[in-house]
Amino acid sequence: MTAAGRPLRATIVTVGDELLIGETVDSNAAWLGRELSSLGIPVVERFTVGDSDEDIQRAVRRAMEAGDLVLVTGGLGPTADDRTRTAVADLLEAPLRIDPDLLRDLESRFRSRGFERLPPLNRSQAEVPEGATVLANPRGTAPGLALLIEGTLVALLPGVPAEMKEIARGDLRAVLANTFGDRLRPLHHRLIHTTGIAESELAGRLDDVLPDDMGPVSLAFLPDLGGVDLRLTARGVEEVEAREWLDRLEAAMSSVVGPFRFEAETGDLVEAVSRALDVAGLAMATAESCTGGLLAKRMTDHPGSSRVFRGGVVAYANRIKVDLLGVDEAELEREGAVSELVARQMALGVGRVLDAPVGVGITGIAGPSGGSADKPVGLVWYAVSVRGRVEARMAVFGPDRVGIRERSAQAALAEVLHRLEAER
Amino acid sequence: MTAAGRPLRATIVTVGDELLIGETVDSNAAWLGRELSSLGIPVVERFTVGDSDEDIQRAVRRAMEAGDLVLVTGGLGPTADDRTRTAVADLLEAPLRIDPDLLRDLESRFRSRGFERLPPLNRSQAEVPEGATVLANPRGTAPGLALLIEGTLVALLPGVPAEMKEIARGDLRAVLANTFGDRLRPLHHRLIHTTGIAESELAGRLDDVLPDDMGPVSLAFLPDLGGVDLRLTARGVEEVEAREWLDRLEAAMSSVVGPFRFEAETGDLVEAVSRALDVAGLAMATAESCTGGLLAKRMTDHPGSSRVFRGGVVAYANRIKVDLLGVDEAELEREGAVSELVARQMALGVGRVLDAPVGVGITGIAGPSGGSADKPVGLVWYAVSVRGRVEARMAVFGPDRVGIRERSAQAALAEVLHRLEAER
Repeated sequence: MTAAGRPLRATIVTVGDELLIGETVDSNAAWLGRELSSLGIPVVERFTVGDSDEDIQRAVRRAMEAGDLVLVTGGLGPTADDRTRTAVADLLEAPLRIDPDLLRDLESRFRSRGFERLPPLNRSQAEVPEGATVLANPRGTAPGLALLIEGTLVALLPGVPAEMKEIARGDLRAVLANTFGDRLRPLHHRLIHTTGIAESELAGRLDDVLPDDMGPVSLAFLPDLGGVDLRLTARGVEEVEAREWLDRLEAAMSSVVGPFRFEAETGDLVEAVSRALDVAGLAMATAESCTGGLLAKRMTDHPGSSRVFRGGVVAYANRIKVDLLGVDEAELEREGAVSELVARQMALGVGRVLDAPVGVGITGIAGPSGGSADKPVGLVWYAVSVRGRVEARMAVFGPDRVGIRERSAQAALAEVLHRLEAER
Repeated sequence: MTAAGRPLRATIVTVGDELLIGETVDSNAAWLGRELSSLGIPVVERFTVGDSDEDIQRAVRRAMEAGDLVLVTGGLGPTADDRTRTAVADLLEAPLRIDPDLLRDLESRFRSRGFERLPPLNRSQAEVPEGATVLANPRGTAPGLALLIEGTLVALLPGVPAEMKEIARGDLRAVLANTFGDRLRPLHHRLIHTTGIAESELAGRLDDVLPDDMGPVSLAFLPDLGGVDLRLTARGVEEVEAREWLDRLEAAMSSVVGPFRFEAETGDLVEAVSRALDVAGLAMATAESCTGGLLAKRMTDHPGSSRVFRGGVVAYANRIKVDLLGVDEAELEREGAVSELVARQMALGVGRVLDAPVGVGITGIAGPSGGSADKPVGLVWYAVSVRGRVEARMAVFGPDRVGIRERSAQAALAEVLHRLEAER
C-alpha cells in the first residue's frame, strides 16, 4: 500500500422499474464499470432498484458502506416517477434549493426550443441539494450532481446513456481528480487486433514467447466472430513505466501475432482493407453466394467506401454464377457450386464484369441443411483475384449459419489484405 | 387482494467480477426480469457482486429480506473462483453432500467425451446442499439448485445464458408451480408487428379507436429501426378472460394498424415477404446502391431463402447501374443517381438481368456527406417491379447512416409485401 492509502472502491446504483422487469438491459452499469476500472476505481458492488424513494435510499445507504465513490444513474428526469434527486437529498439531509445559474440555463434552453416559459415540471431540474456540485449536461436538461459526505463521493447521473457518458467523461472526471487526487490510478491499455487464428491456438503460442514475469501487465483474450483481440493492461504504474512494459511485451508477441494482426482504429478489418486498397489505388468488387451480400454490406457500412468499392453481385442462384459472372456451366456441374474452381471463376468474373482490379468470390454451405459427407455444412471456398492473378482457400467454419457467414466474409477480407500486402 | 395472499416478489443476485468491471453486460438479469414478470412475479430488487463468499452471502441475505423468490445466477462452475454453491450452502446452513445420481450423470457425461474418469475439479459439481432440489441442466455440467427456507425459495442457476434459460424454463418453472401454486399469475401477451408508421403517429391514431377502459390490458410501444411492435399485456386474469380482452382490443385497433401490419413469428419482415413470394410462386432479385447489400443479406439471413430469392446486384458505382442494370446513362446524368427514374430502372433491370419476376431497386443518400438542398442526406427512392409493372416511392429517413440504410431496406421490403398482397 502506498502513502496514498488503500485502493479506491466504487459502488453503482442503477434506478428504474424498466431495468428490473427487463425491458431495458443495464448497459449503463457495464459502461460505468469499464470506465471506472480504467481510472483505477474498480466497482465492488452494484444495486438495481425501482422508482421508489425508500428503495433508492436503502440502496444508496448500502452502497455508501462499501464505496469511496457511489454512482447513482437514472431517475433524474422531470416527471413524478423520477425520484432520485429528492430521495438522495432527503437521505443525505441536504435540502433542495433552486440553483439560479441552472434555472437561467434551463429557461434559455426552453426558450430556444420555442417555449414561452419553463414548464413547471422542469423547474425541479434546477433544484440542487445543499453543498452539491453541479455536473454540466451538455446533451440534456438533467444535470449531474455530486456530494462529498464524510469522505464518500456520491454522484447522481441521468439514465439516458449518451447524457450519462458525456457527464462521466466531463465534469465527473474533474470532480474525481479533485476529490481523490493521486489515489486515482488510471490503467494503460494496448489493443492488438488479430483474425484468422483461434483463441486457444493463439494462447498456446503466446505462452511460448511471453515472459513468466509480465510485471504490472495482464493479458486478456477478447474473441468474437471476426477474430481475437488481445488487450494488454498495465495497472498501478505511471504512464512512462506502463508504456515501457507494453512496448516490451508487444515486441515479444510480434513473431506470433504478426501474420494475423491488422491495424484498425474501429477494430473493423474493413477499415484496414479499405486503406490497403486506397494505398494500392485499386478498386474491389465482390461475388457472394453463401454470404448473400454480407461482404458488400460490410464494405459499405462506413462512409467513403465508394472510392475503393465498386459493387458486387449476390449470386445466390447458380444461374447467376453462370450467366452473369461467366462461371463455366459444365465445370460447375462437375465440381459443384461449392468448389475451388467456382470460387476462382466468381472472383475473376466479378472483377471483369464490374471492371475492378480486385475481385472476391465466396461460395460455401451456410446450413443448416445442404451438407454432405464430402462437403459438410460450414465448408467455404473463397478466392481473391488481384489484377487477374487469383488464389483460393478453403475453410470449415462454424458453429451456425451466422457464424459461418460472418467468418467467411472476415476470412475473405483478411485474404484481400494479405494479397495486397504481399504485392507491395 | 385475493385469498391467495399478496402478490409474489422476486429478487435477483448476479455473481461475477466480469459483470462489475463491465466486461460482460448483465443480459441474464434482464432476461430473468422479463421471464419472471411474465409469470406474475415482478423483480423488486437486484444485486450484483463479485466472486467472493462474503459478498455473495451479504447479497443473498439482503435479497431474502425482500423476495419470496431469490434467484442467484453465476459462480456454479468447477473452478476455485466459482463460489456461489459453497457460499449459499454455508449461509443457509445446508451442508454440501455428494448427490449419487448427479455424480453418476457427471461421470457418464465425461466418459462420453472421452475422459477415463471425472476430473477431481468437476466432482464438486455433484455436491448439493442438504434439502435442495436439483434442477436439471441439459446443456452443461452445472445443475441448478433450489432450496425452500421459511417460505422463501432460493434458486441457484449457472451464469452461461443458454444453460440458465433452459433450466429457468424447465425444472425451475415446475418448482415455482409446486411452491407457489395459484399465487403465480402469468401474464398474457399479444404482439402486433407494424412497419411504415412512426410511433407518435400510431399512438395518436390508436388513441382515437381504443376504449378508455382497457380492463386488465396495457399497451406498450416497442419501436426499432424496422418499425413499431405493439404489445398488449393482460395481467391478473385467467387465460379465457385474457383472450377475450385481447381479441376485443385487437379488433378495435385493426382499422388503424391494418395497412401497416405484418405477420411474422420471428418479428422479421423478411419472413412475411418470403412467405408472400412463395405463395405467389415468384422469385425476387435486388439492385442496391445506398443499402450496399443489406437487403440481399437480410433476404439470405435465414435458411430456405433460395426458393424465393435469386440474388442481387450491389450497384455502388454508377457505371454498374448503367452497364449491368441497363439504367439509361443520359437520364441518370440528367436526373441524378438518386432519382425516381433510376430506382425504377434498377428494379426493372435487375429483374431482367437475374431473370426474376420481382425486382427491387434502392438508391439514396446514406450520408453523412453527399446531401444537397434539393436532395438531403436520408433521401431515398425505392421501386418494386412485379412482372414488369413498376412503382416507386420516395422517403427521407434518419437519423444516421445505419438508420437510413436499415429503414430503406425495411421500406422496400414492405413495398414488396404490399404489391404482392394487392395482386392477390
